[in-house]
Amino acid sequence: MRIRVINPNTTEAMTKAIEAAAQSAAWPGSSITAVNPEMGPVSIESHYDEALSVPGVLAEIHRAESEGAEGYVLACFGDPGLDAARELATGPVVGIAEAAMHMASHLGRGFSVVTTLERTTGRAWDLAERYGMSRFCRGVHGCDIAVLDLETNPKTKDILIEHCRRAARDDGIDVIVLGCAGMAGLCRDISSEIGLPVIDGVAAAVNLVQSLVAMGLRKSGRGEFATPPIKPYAGLMDSFGSVSAG
Amino acid sequence: MRIRVINPNTTEAMTKAIEAAAQSAAWPGSSITAVNPEMGPVSIESHYDEALSVPGVLAEIHRAESEGAEGYVLACFGDPGLDAARELATGPVVGIAEAAMHMASHLGRGFSVVTTLERTTGRAWDLAERYGMSRFCRGVHGCDIAVLDLETNPKTKDILIEHCRRAARDDGIDVIVLGCAGMAGLCRDISSEIGLPVIDGVAAAVNLVQSLVAMGLRKSGRGEFATPPIKPYAGLMDSFGSVSAG
Amino acid sequence: MRIRVINPNTTEAMTKAIEAAAQSAAWPGSSITAVNPEMGPVSIESHYDEALSVPGVLAEIHRAESEGAEGYVLACFGDPGLDAARELATGPVVGIAEAAMHMASHLGRGFSVVTTLERTTGRAWDLAERYGMSRFCRGVHGCDIAVLDLETNPKTKDILIEHCRRAARDDGIDVIVLGCAGMAGLCRDISSEIGLPVIDGVAAAVNLVQSLVAMGLRKSGRGEFATPPIKPYAGLMDSFGSVSAG
Amino acid sequence: MRIRVINPNTTEAMTKAIEAAAQSAAWPGSSITAVNPEMGPVSIESHYDEALSVPGVLAEIHRAESEGAEGYVLACFGDPGLDAARELATGPVVGIAEAAMHMASHLGRGFSVVTTLERTTGRAWDLAERYGMSRFCRGVHGCDIAVLDLETNPKTKDILIEHCRRAARDDGIDVIVLGCAGMAGLCRDISSEIGLPVIDGVAAAVNLVQSLVAMGLRKSGRGEFATPPIKPYAGLMDSFGSVSAG
Amino acid sequence: MRIRVINPNTTEAMTKAIEAAAQSAAWPGSSITAVNPEMGPVSIESHYDEALSVPGVLAEIHRAESEGAEGYVLACFGDPGLDAARELATGPVVGIAEAAMHMASHLGRGFSVVTTLERTTGRAWDLAERYGMSRFCRGVHGCDIAVLDLETNPKTKDILIEHCRRAARDDGIDVIVLGCAGMAGLCRDISSEIGLPVIDGVAAAVNLVQSLVAMGLRKSGRGEFATPPIKPYAGLMDSFGSVSAG
Amino acid sequence: MRIRVINPNTTEAMTKAIEAAAQSAAWPGSSITAVNPEMGPVSIESHYDEALSVPGVLAEIHRAESEGAEGYVLACFGDPGLDAARELATGPVVGIAEAAMHMASHLGRGFSVVTTLERTTGRAWDLAERYGMSRFCRGVHGCDIAVLDLETNPKTKDILIEHCRRAARDDGIDVIVLGCAGMAGLCRDISSEIGLPVIDGVAAAVNLVQSLVAMGLRKSGRGEFATPPIKPYAGLMDSFGSVSAG
Repeated sequence: MRIRVINPNTTEAMTKAIEAAAQSAAWPGSSITAVNPEMGPVSIESHYDEALSVPGVLAEIHRAESEGAEGYVLACFGDPGLDAARELATGPVVGIAEAAMHMASHLGRGFSVVTTLERTTGRAWDLAERYGMSRFCRGVHGCDIAVLDLETNPKTKDILIEHCRRAARDDGIDVIVLGCAGMAGLCRDISSEIGLPVIDGVAAAVNLVQSLVAMGLRKSGRGEFATPPIKPYAGLMDSFGSVSAG
Repeated sequence: MRIRVINPNTTEAMTKAIEAAAQSAAWPGSSITAVNPEMGPVSIESHYDEALSVPGVLAEIHRAESEGAEGYVLACFGDPGLDAARELATGPVVGIAEAAMHMASHLGRGFSVVTTLERTTGRAWDLAERYGMSRFCRGVHGCDIAVLDLETNPKTKDILIEHCRRAARDDGIDVIVLGCAGMAGLCRDISSEIGLPVIDGVAAAVNLVQSLVAMGLRKSGRGEFATPPIKPYAGLMDSFGSVSAG
Repeated sequence: MRIRVINPNTTEAMTKAIEAAAQSAAWPGSSITAVNPEMGPVSIESHYDEALSVPGVLAEIHRAESEGAEGYVLACFGDPGLDAARELATGPVVGIAEAAMHMASHLGRGFSVVTTLERTTGRAWDLAERYGMSRFCRGVHGCDIAVLDLETNPKTKDILIEHCRRAARDDGIDVIVLGCAGMAGLCRDISSEIGLPVIDGVAAAVNLVQSLVAMGLRKSGRGEFATPPIKPYAGLMDSFGSVSAG
Repeated sequence: MRIRVINPNTTEAMTKAIEAAAQSAAWPGSSITAVNPEMGPVSIESHYDEALSVPGVLAEIHRAESEGAEGYVLACFGDPGLDAARELATGPVVGIAEAAMHMASHLGRGFSVVTTLERTTGRAWDLAERYGMSRFCRGVHGCDIAVLDLETNPKTKDILIEHCRRAARDDGIDVIVLGCAGMAGLCRDISSEIGLPVIDGVAAAVNLVQSLVAMGLRKSGRGEFATPPIKPYAGLMDSFGSVSAG
Repeated sequence: MRIRVINPNTTEAMTKAIEAAAQSAAWPGSSITAVNPEMGPVSIESHYDEALSVPGVLAEIHRAESEGAEGYVLACFGDPGLDAARELATGPVVGIAEAAMHMASHLGRGFSVVTTLERTTGRAWDLAERYGMSRFCRGVHGCDIAVLDLETNPKTKDILIEHCRRAARDDGIDVIVLGCAGMAGLCRDISSEIGLPVIDGVAAAVNLVQSLVAMGLRKSGRGEFATPPIKPYAGLMDSFGSVSAG
Repeated sequence: MRIRVINPNTTEAMTKAIEAAAQSAAWPGSSITAVNPEMGPVSIESHYDEALSVPGVLAEIHRAESEGAEGYVLACFGDPGLDAARELATGPVVGIAEAAMHMASHLGRGFSVVTTLERTTGRAWDLAERYGMSRFCRGVHGCDIAVLDLETNPKTKDILIEHCRRAARDDGIDVIVLGCAGMAGLCRDISSEIGLPVIDGVAAAVNLVQSLVAMGLRKSGRGEFATPPIKPYAGLMDSFGSVSAG
């Protein structure tokens, strides 16, 4: 099956890292490729960044649809544009926050999210509520590392371990969810340090979307998530006007 | 005080109608102007449309900030881009769904929303939850009129009255909220037909934002809604890269 | 428009201060007067006080109705008698806790209330739930100053600032709501000290009720909030028996 | 043990009927007397009525405290003044809606309330939420009989049976709660007609308050429900000023 | 009336202590006996223990039904098998966690549970939610004493007092609920030490079930809690196959 | 990887059918076997049946642990014994209701469950709440076919289609969840008839548990879900006493 992973920011190095994490979760026979939009922010660290990333994400879904993609992963912990992507895509679309939180709920009574900047914690709480996961979400903690510094900051792992350890001690949890696609490579190390399972959303979402595709599950084609009706999109957005009926 | 009303779609006729509704709610001394983005959908009837409208809305906030606007109304019932707009603007930003639902909650135990297309009702429920208004929201009803047909369809008023009457009978409510900026002109007629108060979100939001400005209330400048950090925005989005620190 | 602000306690000095705060929020052309009942407690600091204040509040609504009042503010943070006042009044009735909490919800993700006595914090939580505002309310803090000492205690401002500062630090909030009508005059000073917006419920409610009146919004006249049916009220309460049909 | 049942309205015939229902639930050795205030409405069918009944209820608690009452039942389905009564009384206070809803929750997955006037159903929902019983409360139905007509209307029983039967059929419930102290005598007949348990709040509350007294349970004497502080109560309310410290 | 108290574990000494606590809550004329199953764990300190205790509990209900029991108490704070027991029994069944939490809700705004092992606190939170009591439950605290050590550990009372005192200080509560049937004898001592009411679930449940029986309240005989249909139960469970229609 | 699917009832024919459904969801390299307990009910259609099935389920987990199973599926829609199974197993345990509801939540705004007997619908609602899925669950419908009649009743498919169609029409949903492991074979036919995706919990859970095992996710070994402490299990339960420390 063909799965498209979309990194919603425009930083290609991050796309590569996400692709590696995604492919390590591929089932035999799955073809998984990661892409990023041509337009949009280099990283997503505010509601503003997120809003500006969504048109690019949707353009990638348009492109992938024409290339035969059967399922999608949105690889930013804010799950930007999830509703619109679900309207547009014929196959299932899963966000990495969505996948990680759901997976965490199967392992115990509660999880905490450890993410990049404190200002993004509100979005994580919003998503937990939307997915029905707020009863499992016990804490969301920023650790004051910018997304693009995760790779380069030599203390990244130490800082993350410190925040995860504190969450494990204070929040009464069974699982840690890492709140950024750029943290995927650190799961196992952190887990062995703190003695709790640690979930990377990219692997979680790739498994989940493969499961949905394998089960033949996709939206119904009617109602709220039916393909959006064709209409003119003025100005810079012209390229989006070519939505065809589902 | 200077209030900017942003119609998130690109249909100028609708912007004019919204401006009229907004100005009829202006306090003495307020200057209220309505604008619409240059780019984006001609009407907003899906999550996809909404996502594509947001960059244009944010561009209008950038422009208005430089022109000295002190407060904002987002004049589409999906309140598109509200979080990002709040980050960007120095003055208060209020959505028309937000304002209408809150106002309705002061008049009784419950309200129902009567809106355009059935496929948009999910979004109204999401907003009700986000604003804490789900305990007051008893029904959301689509009446199968496209946004741009509201003006031209000779049966618009009759259809709306029929749906409002049914909601009044079945939902156990005290108030009707009209779920589209394009319905503003019909409030009084519908209200006198069905014998319940009927709320137009444009007037509600204009009053609310004037109240906030008059009270000197604006976000704190720190935390989640602080001005977003400066960063490169690739491709078509270049013009958004000029956010200055708050 | 004619707005009546009712201070539910019987302390006239406080009524004067409330009137000043209310009038500073008057729109051009609004006539705003503050009154207090002849009977009832000198301050409201318990469920017991609140219960005993309500008949006096309702007597003031009877009187104001006959004098042509078009809207009402209940100027005690417990919003005493709000449901009964809404039944009785033909125009809109808004409580100051109600108004302040709603206004705060437009400015960010959360607020804390700083109020007088610790024993009244439960009531604030109850109101937050009733208004749908518990998702925004992150803390309610008593600062152990009795209502009637607010004016005379030379340390009032310092104590309030201390409690607001602590709430700002610990509660993860964007806004402070002051939980007593007698604190109205301190908003701006506290706000500039702690760097967060601070809301006075009197100004909030006066703006809100003017908005509702300006929009022609009042209850429907049927159902739960219809004028209560006429019946005998025995003993001391005789004067309340004269409710006329709506 | 000495239990005082307070009928919050001023209709003595109803007090007598309530006393009979209460005494039939007395344990051996309990002394149960029912009283009603000298002032207040003849029946409670609105928020307004309820508000005006509360001072009289509190006066009865003052009197009963001096007479050695060890526990209290508030015998009106709106549980008027419950919080204030709990502050004032040294022994436990239980409302009949509170008791009936809690008892119903032990018998199955859900109950419906059948009450007098439709306009009072909102209050029942509020109480269900306050008591944590909204997850069990599946319906609240008015049957358009005024409180004082329950005794005299020859069709009372038939109308109640009809509404209970409909609730049993439509609401997916296991139990009926009768929503007025004046319906106490009809429980068994209705139950045998509709084949579901039917709960009278007076018997439920009398059992509950005897249980609490027998277990030696009363409020702690500090915090929110501590005896309210002494203060002047102006005008007609003077007699309430004599609260002594707890 | 004949009430059967079932200690779900197989430790007879604990059954005796529970019987004593239960009988001290008997009304005149009530016959209360405590039993324990022949099979199952010696104490219940995990979901696993609880699951293994339930068949034995149900066997005791079968036996008690044939002996004419009119009501039941499940005397373990996890309320094991409550739903199944309600199906099987013709009279009411009340769990001690259920009873204690409900009783606590009548005494103030909130309670905390102090129980044995930390690993059982999750179950207490689950029950609080199920009973609608999570709005009252402010804390659940394990104090690291195994169930069977409660009797023998000389520091039991001191440790419990310490944990109750801390809960009273930190949780903003009005009542303590003791979270184990084996703690029944310590209520009064702890209460006088910490100055808050302390509830033993055994006494609470015995009072509640006597109240329900006295009011003639039992399940309806249809729907979810109707007697379960007869069917073969293979292997060791054969003795359970003899359920007769209700 | 080795996955053990446990059919909690003792009907071997059903175990075979479940095994077929499970194996059709196996990934390359997975070894999936289905078993059923030796003791317990032939089908699970009540809380009583469910309670009696759990010890047998746990015995199967004991056995499978010794045989090297790495993950578990509980293949009855009541997810019997899930918490206890999680304590006991070293690998992840997923229930079919849990898996189906979560999967459904990724496909739209809401789902309805269509299950066997009406009396089991309460359990499905309980599980939806526990899993955080009640915001997605719009209806649970019994269709009055006993579990063991699903295979033999010639009208099973027609009846299910009829109930699914009605749910699709009335509940405003995007997905159907089939509420019994015995319905697995009918998914595709029902889906093509009603035009909505239809989810079989067995396939969903098998995919989910393989995902968790592939990601190396298992409980942490401490806290609520740590291996339960060793203790005597009296009488028939003796064989359960051999739990070894984790």
